[in-house]
Amino acid sequence: MAVISGNDEAAVLHGPRDLRIEKIDRMQVGDGQVRVEVHGVSLCGSDLHYYADGRNGSNSLTQPTVLGHEGFGVITEVGAGVSQHRIGQRVAIEPAVPNGTSPLTLSGHYNVCPSVVCFGSPPNHGLLRQSVVLAAEFAHPLPDSIDDGVAALIEPLAVAVWAAARVGSVLGKRIAITGAGPIGLLVLQTVIALGASETTITDVAPARLEIAAALGATTTLRSGEDALPEGAFDIAFDCSGHPGAIADAARSLGPAGILALVGVPGRAVAEFPIGAVQRWELDIRGCFRYGPSAFAEAIALAGSARVNLAALVTSTYPLAESAAALEAALTDPTQLKIVIDTTLQGPQ
Amino acid sequence: MAVISGNDEAAVLHGPRDLRIEKIDRMQVGDGQVRVEVHGVSLCGSDLHYYADGRNGSNSLTQPTVLGHEGFGVITEVGAGVSQHRIGQRVAIEPAVPNGTSPLTLSGHYNVCPSVVCFGSPPNHGLLRQSVVLAAEFAHPLPDSIDDGVAALIEPLAVAVWAAARVGSVLGKRIAITGAGPIGLLVLQTVIALGASETTITDVAPARLEIAAALGATTTLRSGEDALPEGAFDIAFDCSGHPGAIADAARSLGPAGILALVGVPGRAVAEFPIGAVQRWELDIRGCFRYGPSAFAEAIALAGSARVNLAALVTSTYPLAESAAALEAALTDPTQLKIVIDTTLQGPQ
Amino acid sequence: MAVISGNDEAAVLHGPRDLRIEKIDRMQVGDGQVRVEVHGVSLCGSDLHYYADGRNGSNSLTQPTVLGHEGFGVITEVGAGVSQHRIGQRVAIEPAVPNGTSPLTLSGHYNVCPSVVCFGSPPNHGLLRQSVVLAAEFAHPLPDSIDDGVAALIEPLAVAVWAAARVGSVLGKRIAITGAGPIGLLVLQTVIALGASETTITDVAPARLEIAAALGATTTLRSGEDALPEGAFDIAFDCSGHPGAIADAARSLGPAGILALVGVPGRAVAEFPIGAVQRWELDIRGCFRYGPSAFAEAIALAGSARVNLAALVTSTYPLAESAAALEAALTDPTQLKIVIDTTLQGPQ
Amino acid sequence: MAVISGNDEAAVLHGPRDLRIEKIDRMQVGDGQVRVEVHGVSLCGSDLHYYADGRNGSNSLTQPTVLGHEGFGVITEVGAGVSQHRIGQRVAIEPAVPNGTSPLTLSGHYNVCPSVVCFGSPPNHGLLRQSVVLAAEFAHPLPDSIDDGVAALIEPLAVAVWAAARVGSVLGKRIAITGAGPIGLLVLQTVIALGASETTITDVAPARLEIAAALGATTTLRSGEDALPEGAFDIAFDCSGHPGAIADAARSLGPAGILALVGVPGRAVAEFPIGAVQRWELDIRGCFRYGPSAFAEAIALAGSARVNLAALVTSTYPLAESAAALEAALTDPTQLKIVIDTTLQGPQ
Repeated sequence: MAVISGNDEAAVLHGPRDLRIEKIDRMQVGDGQVRVEVHGVSLCGSDLHYYADGRNGSNSLTQPTVLGHEGFGVITEVGAGVSQHRIGQRVAIEPAVPNGTSPLTLSGHYNVCPSVVCFGSPPNHGLLRQSVVLAAEFAHPLPDSIDDGVAALIEPLAVAVWAAARVGSVLGKRIAITGAGPIGLLVLQTVIALGASETTITDVAPARLEIAAALGATTTLRSGEDALPEGAFDIAFDCSGHPGAIADAARSLGPAGILALVGVPGRAVAEFPIGAVQRWELDIRGCFRYGPSAFAEAIALAGSARVNLAALVTSTYPLAESAAALEAALTDPTQLKIVIDTTLQGPQ
Repeated sequence: MAVISGNDEAAVLHGPRDLRIEKIDRMQVGDGQVRVEVHGVSLCGSDLHYYADGRNGSNSLTQPTVLGHEGFGVITEVGAGVSQHRIGQRVAIEPAVPNGTSPLTLSGHYNVCPSVVCFGSPPNHGLLRQSVVLAAEFAHPLPDSIDDGVAALIEPLAVAVWAAARVGSVLGKRIAITGAGPIGLLVLQTVIALGASETTITDVAPARLEIAAALGATTTLRSGEDALPEGAFDIAFDCSGHPGAIADAARSLGPAGILALVGVPGRAVAEFPIGAVQRWELDIRGCFRYGPSAFAEAIALAGSARVNLAALVTSTYPLAESAAALEAALTDPTQLKIVIDTTLQGPQ
Repeated sequence: MAVISGNDEAAVLHGPRDLRIEKIDRMQVGDGQVRVEVHGVSLCGSDLHYYADGRNGSNSLTQPTVLGHEGFGVITEVGAGVSQHRIGQRVAIEPAVPNGTSPLTLSGHYNVCPSVVCFGSPPNHGLLRQSVVLAAEFAHPLPDSIDDGVAALIEPLAVAVWAAARVGSVLGKRIAITGAGPIGLLVLQTVIALGASETTITDVAPARLEIAAALGATTTLRSGEDALPEGAFDIAFDCSGHPGAIADAARSLGPAGILALVGVPGRAVAEFPIGAVQRWELDIRGCFRYGPSAFAEAIALAGSARVNLAALVTSTYPLAESAAALEAALTDPTQLKIVIDTTLQGPQ
Repeated sequence: MAVISGNDEAAVLHGPRDLRIEKIDRMQVGDGQVRVEVHGVSLCGSDLHYYADGRNGSNSLTQPTVLGHEGFGVITEVGAGVSQHRIGQRVAIEPAVPNGTSPLTLSGHYNVCPSVVCFGSPPNHGLLRQSVVLAAEFAHPLPDSIDDGVAALIEPLAVAVWAAARVGSVLGKRIAITGAGPIGLLVLQTVIALGASETTITDVAPARLEIAAALGATTTLRSGEDALPEGAFDIAFDCSGHPGAIADAARSLGPAGILALVGVPGRAVAEFPIGAVQRWELDIRGCFRYGPSAFAEAIALAGSARVNLAALVTSTYPLAESAAALEAALTDPTQLKIVIDTTLQGPQ
């Protein structure tokens, strides 16, 4: 996977703001694996960090790397032990693949197993290329009801679905969500679909709150202007990563409330209301990527039109214009999700 | 309950360090209730706070109040709807009684229901008196195998048992405990009894660590000198309330680890490693008093000699010397649990 | 409650097919209670059994008893400790009220506590009367979005919601339902609303299967003609009580599948595939009435139009014609749910 | 693995009562695997069925097969990706190895994944041979505190530990166990170790009940003479597989009780009290082999002397006398567990 010449076209990041379209070697299909011809990839905050800064959190770009981990495509080749019937199947790619026999994996925690290898997390190449190879079980069949234009967003939707799974049933519950970016808006739609009785969402950007309201939020609050009421919610999801919002989300919970930390915290250590956690038996639950069944559940949710993924797609670019897409994502505050459609030829 | 003259002898706190033995009215036994003649009460940190400062956390002494919430005794009278066979029964007193029909109570969270009334939490009178009246279901039968000298400690043991219930199975798990005071030592014994494979406990006091080692701790660490290893435990219990220890306990966990906050945090808000919580899907679970079944489980544990309560009892005083007992608890660092034996006559 | 003369009009069952409209004493409102003026009651299979046979399962009519346990109305009076603001509130009645301090109730199992008293279960009077009195917490506020014509059906919907709660998340799951009577059709709608990816429902009556298909079932199967495929489902709900259907439902599950027994089994003991339960680690879970939060969740589901209750209401009668309503329910196979509208005057 | 000539001595079953000690090919160590030199194997009911009848349940012997699936030994060789430090490690063998990437495996249900391959389940060779090769994670390190003479019994103990895990906490619970064979006696010891307050065990054999009493059972009942009281237990484990005992175990439960089916049912379909399951919200949970963490937990339990494995070992034989060992197990009713010590030379 490391050779940067070959026969697969790819968007390779060589350094900050140095993204090049070039040929790289095709991956070989092994036992139990499938080749997926990539049709679409959506951009995520971590892609932007690598593109802009050459790093994301504690991980740095140390060699030229293909970006992208939110994608879908079509199976074109299968390895030994995989049914030939899968060829031609349209699939969402679950990009973080565990080592199948670690104790964490066997006990239902594969997503936090240190052995996981994730597409697009340097030095591992990502999905912005013609084809990728992965374990057959991590290529999840897509129904026709999910359009190509939104199929890459199954990955962020799986993040939202997993966060919802981590908190248990939301039916009839009062929910607070801090942060109305793509993940916050997907969590919002997911909990509404699963029966939340009341949803309050916060953000600094009025435009995002307007989208949240259009997607069904009961109440929208502008961070810094209106505070979340204390003790008023059964469950809260932080989708901002902002330490102040995380603390507010905890304080917004009533007795036995649950706070899911979905957004990557902007600081590793921050002020947090530990007294309320103890006194009211709050549960604080970290959420990292997606665990067992999350992709299948996200596909079920999107496939039955219970969530509106199209509302989040603000632009589409061909692979050749990946750099322009990343620049737009970085500089245009009205962008929510940008999709790279790798089937498009030439400029948009 | 408010009249401070009557026929029940009690230890009544009138103000900081102003504890008086005096007569107060007996409580009336209502439907579904029992009268328990109190035989023993052990002292807890909150009793010391009220005695020394007239306050504990955000709650203050505003009128003369009987202290004490860890106690046992014998049923001497039953109300309508309670079997006469209960008269003569030796019982541990579960002191925090919920309103039976609130949604929190009905859903298994009675301990965090704001409607709970707790003995010994001003202005509610406590157990340091001749008799108390409470709902029959909150007077838990004691087997003969639990001696009078330790029966009051079922209450703090119930705190430990509940904390263990909050984290799920500890069998074969590596456990960290921060704080080797009475609660930490009871959590230690509980998790060893329930099959923990390895226990590491920390404290600032070497004497307490020696007791912990004698009670079976695999490893003892002196806080401030030896740090808890990072990522090394499956489950951690903070029994110190110290914000630094709480953060260390969180950092000591491996992926999908669980931290129970058992000690009352010394600060309502403090620095906490929220980044690790999100990245490794840690669960942080507040523990407040004891919930469903905790008293019955504590009695089962103590009744079968799986925990050593006597190791924690360092002194015993008669009711008449309650003030001396509280002073000893406040000033003598070698004290762990002091029991007021209300059946003793005069000076010890 | 036992005097059969007074000032509350009621439908009193004196024996098989001997239902009389007569006056009975009004219940007194005690502390923590509310009086609900009953506006509507829907009929259930157990009402029909008492009406036709004077018995239901092991319980018999031994004295004149008011029938009905599915109802709603308006609060007209509150006891001590209940907010005056509740007067005028439209509420669904949760009819099975537990003793608040039993260990089963405190641990979240109040619905199977032997101390529960249920309206309309002889000798306890039911809801087919002008007003009833119950604990305030068991009168659940209804939003305006739930029409009077269907509000009584919150009770059977709570049965369905509770069954769904007993099996955990249904998102993306393949679901089998045996029995397309009112409860089966409500379970069907509930699991579709909560994200089931595929639903197969069986019944002997083609007309009911047509309704199921119209309500969104993926597949309908006629019992006795088409068998449920074996090993094909993640979760099954038996809503028929038919022993053969229960066994088929168990066999339809794949490894680690879950079967909820919702319908009252027609025989106490029957042939059951215990071998498959052990070999594939199936979970068989009994479901009785509704437990914690079920009414609130049912109201949230119905209030947001995620389920169609009106599709189940096939006739409405005034209180004076309760006997005719019961006869229709017994003899007309096209009836699903019949509502007694106690606000109607005289014949329909 | 199929060639029946080579350099590894093994006990190969050629047909009913036709067990031959002969040489077979050694298995090759692949990536992520280890070779374990087998030191001891205990015999199980399924081994006896294959030996006596050439079949066990629905599985038949179709070619010469090495028996045995309960074993331990020492790692003598490691494959790529496995630490050299594991060489020399004493390990218990978890014999049923899943396919690491199936949805069942990833969601914590690997033991019921149809892809599992189990040692000693024909046509897969078993452990009664000089060495076996398996995934490194399925060779579980043994502490010195577990003697060679009992180390093979970690496997049946893992069955008991997994059954306990399937029912949740047993602390303070009243437990019924039907069947006092090796698994019943290990479940008994496990639940006592984990805090059960009361244990009642049944069997047809008085000798086994005496052992149960010696191991701490509160009450022993002779099946057919004394019935289990109805509604008296919180949790029941069937370890007999006898349909009548399974039904009795279900009836012995109180409201919200849990029945674990651990023994392989003697009939696939049998009379079962489905009415009580529904009315009292019983949970019936199948238990098959052992799931996540069970071996580690069994080792923790045995390693700290909380269970007495030696009490179950009634005889030890060398590999050369495997046929005699199987005959003894079949014909001598006083045998509980027979261990084949493969390190012994010649006749015992």
